Amino acid sequence: MNGDITRIHTGTPENLTERFATRAAQMKPSEIRSLFAVASRPDIVSLAGGMPNLSALPMEMMSNVVARLISENGAEALQYGSGQGHPKLREQICDVMALEGIRAHPDDVIVTTGSQQALDLISRIFIDPGDVILAEAPSYVGALGTFAQYEAQVVHVAMDNDGLIPDALREAITTTRAAGRHIKFLYLIPNYQNPMGVLLPADRRTEILEICRDAGIFVIEDNPYGLLGFDRPSPNAMRAQDSENVIYLGSFSKTIAPGFRVGWALVPQSLKEKIVIASESSILCPSNFSQLAISSYLSDQPWRDQIASFTQLYKVRRDAMLESLDQHFPASATWTRPKGGFYVWVTLPPEIDTKVMMPKAIVAKVAYVPGTAFYADGFGSWSMRLSYCYPEPERIRAGIKSLAGVVKQEMEIRGLD
Amino acid sequence: MNGDITRIHTGTPENLTERFATRAAQMKPSEIRSLFAVASRPDIVSLAGGMPNLSALPMEMMSNVVARLISENGAEALQYGSGQGHPKLREQICDVMALEGIRAHPDDVIVTTGSQQALDLISRIFIDPGDVILAEAPSYVGALGTFAQYEAQVVHVAMDNDGLIPDALREAITTTRAAGRHIKFLYLIPNYQNPMGVLLPADRRTEILEICRDAGIFVIEDNPYGLLGFDRPSPNAMRAQDSENVIYLGSFSKTIAPGFRVGWALVPQSLKEKIVIASESSILCPSNFSQLAISSYLSDQPWRDQIASFTQLYKVRRDAMLESLDQHFPASATWTRPKGGFYVWVTLPPEIDTKVMMPKAIVAKVAYVPGTAFYADGFGSWSMRLSYCYPEPERIRAGIKSLAGVVKQEMEIRGLD
Repeated sequence: MNGDITRIHTGTPENLTERFATRAAQMKPSEIRSLFAVASRPDIVSLAGGMPNLSALPMEMMSNVVARLISENGAEALQYGSGQGHPKLREQICDVMALEGIRAHPDDVIVTTGSQQALDLISRIFIDPGDVILAEAPSYVGALGTFAQYEAQVVHVAMDNDGLIPDALREAITTTRAAGRHIKFLYLIPNYQNPMGVLLPADRRTEILEICRDAGIFVIEDNPYGLLGFDRPSPNAMRAQDSENVIYLGSFSKTIAPGFRVGWALVPQSLKEKIVIASESSILCPSNFSQLAISSYLSDQPWRDQIASFTQLYKVRRDAMLESLDQHFPASATWTRPKGGFYVWVTLPPEIDTKVMMPKAIVAKVAYVPGTAFYADGFGSWSMRLSYCYPEPERIRAGIKSLAGVVKQEMEIRGLD
Repeated sequence: MNGDITRIHTGTPENLTERFATRAAQMKPSEIRSLFAVASRPDIVSLAGGMPNLSALPMEMMSNVVARLISENGAEALQYGSGQGHPKLREQICDVMALEGIRAHPDDVIVTTGSQQALDLISRIFIDPGDVILAEAPSYVGALGTFAQYEAQVVHVAMDNDGLIPDALREAITTTRAAGRHIKFLYLIPNYQNPMGVLLPADRRTEILEICRDAGIFVIEDNPYGLLGFDRPSPNAMRAQDSENVIYLGSFSKTIAPGFRVGWALVPQSLKEKIVIASESSILCPSNFSQLAISSYLSDQPWRDQIASFTQLYKVRRDAMLESLDQHFPASATWTRPKGGFYVWVTLPPEIDTKVMMPKAIVAKVAYVPGTAFYADGFGSWSMRLSYCYPEPERIRAGIKSLAGVVKQEMEIRGLD
């Protein structure tokens, strides 16, 4: 092992910054990076991460699936594959999307290294520096990071407990265009949104699609959580209504496992060739090994039942979190009541700064993500995202109780109640 | 299955081109894309691809490795991982690089989705539109494609049968800078180069490193084939001499298997943070499943012996190709005599256009890659790349014999001999 070589720290060469591309200025460590290192300590109840809970996944079955894949089809599984993704998996992905009312052709599916790569590829084909991306307020931190690297300006569009507000979208389009800016697409997560946990109702979906179609703006429908609803069948995807103007992003990270890094984009035909070429330039081809492991699992295993097991597991944790919030949190705090997915969004009195409060929470052995992480513009300082996906229910209860103590103390210091 | 849905072809919306980013104009299908579809027909002897031959890989052993990985460590292997890559694999990568004289620290290794992703990330942090990248003449088609997407201008530097010519590099730097252009890095493949198959001698390595250091130009050392030498120990990597100015790219695609999509970059400390952030924005994290499969294989299996088996297999095929070329090709053609890797580079009389000749070769049941694919500037029309990595030796002999017939016919038509 070479781990014992001492590195001589020579520092950054003086002229290095000017040697980087302009976009490199956007490549700064996110505020939640250092947090995750602390939050992963075993004595901390982490309500910060978005890691799915794999305890419901039968590992011996998965072990058999991959063993048989290699012994029966190793020459293909371990070889280079198609840049667009394996044809068989693309057919199976169409079957998965059919659960959300999508009728799609496998030719229009592009397999990606997680749906993060799809976000990257879409940004690559659309974003010139200074272009505007519309996104929910708040929005997924990983998408905001990618848009920033492509030097886009994110304009946030207001939400309420029913998700993105159509009138706010109309206004954002008008205002942005009046300022002479180019809007490239609307990015949203209609199902159990990250970070708010809210669900966009059917009438708003239709209205938002109409607004974007009329305005000539593509809709990026990011949907990692759609099959993880607790009490009702999956709502129809926005893509089910509009195959021309919606780019749909899917992922197996939450319905099977994230370690495979298999996601996909379902795109209008007019965009497919450029996205495939962009993907080949980025990674040559997605992993056949991962893709065929997922494909074998979908073929041979009761994957719908498995998703039901995951959903049950998350529902119990959601209940534990909401009950504890009801029991312990002060009356002046509000929070969402998710019907699926991983997240609760808590809003405190505006005098509280959740980033400043974070070290105190760590001392109290609990971690969360401060709200500002989910805005491109510094907003969100009195909000926080709490994830119930990973810890055991008893740990969630203990964590919320501790966190409530920290919040109450912060409020007392400021004379709030 | 949804494969039976008929797609209504609506064509490209009129205003779509102006909605794309400027860089999207560079996302055009490569000239070898359509070729590969034809070349993969079983009746064609394909000397076109760069697919490693996996017949020497013991599949039952690989099957056991991945089965044990999931049953013993599935909760980690199927979960999200570190953006920089798994710490254990990064240590093992340092052990692999030690075979080429590199002393590296695992903290400076970034695991990527194949080394193609490393090329993408390096391009992302360095290239502004119009910047110049220096590359060998000819150079790897996949790298040229990535540089083009970042809107770089590639300036090719002349090679001979000992690889890149140092004096040509000096001249390219002087000329480019005199024209007021910014050179961001030199990209080269010192070992068994793609597409020429040549090996850069030690004295040239030292001289090229000095030239680039003096000029303040980073060196990208792309090294997928370094351990696949036929007759001698692996030459020391350029990175072994210079840890400050060399970005080293490695890959398991040719030494283990490409289906895992695991490569890496070893970078100067000053670049690491930005590359990790760029990678997280691009794919969130590399696959733990793939990384830990490679890691288990390296821990538990005789991987050096396995590389020796691969090398022996390729040597037999190299011999078959060179013997057949000697026997059948006309005296006015020249070709390289590789001591490792996958490729022979053939130069025909300049009157022959290998792209125009390609359909005739397909009729004769043999495929290759026309030389122009390996230049950013249209050069290379009378050259071609022949790969001996994949087909059986007898197929290689038959293919070369057929191809010689096509070449001779082309020459006769033009009155050449």
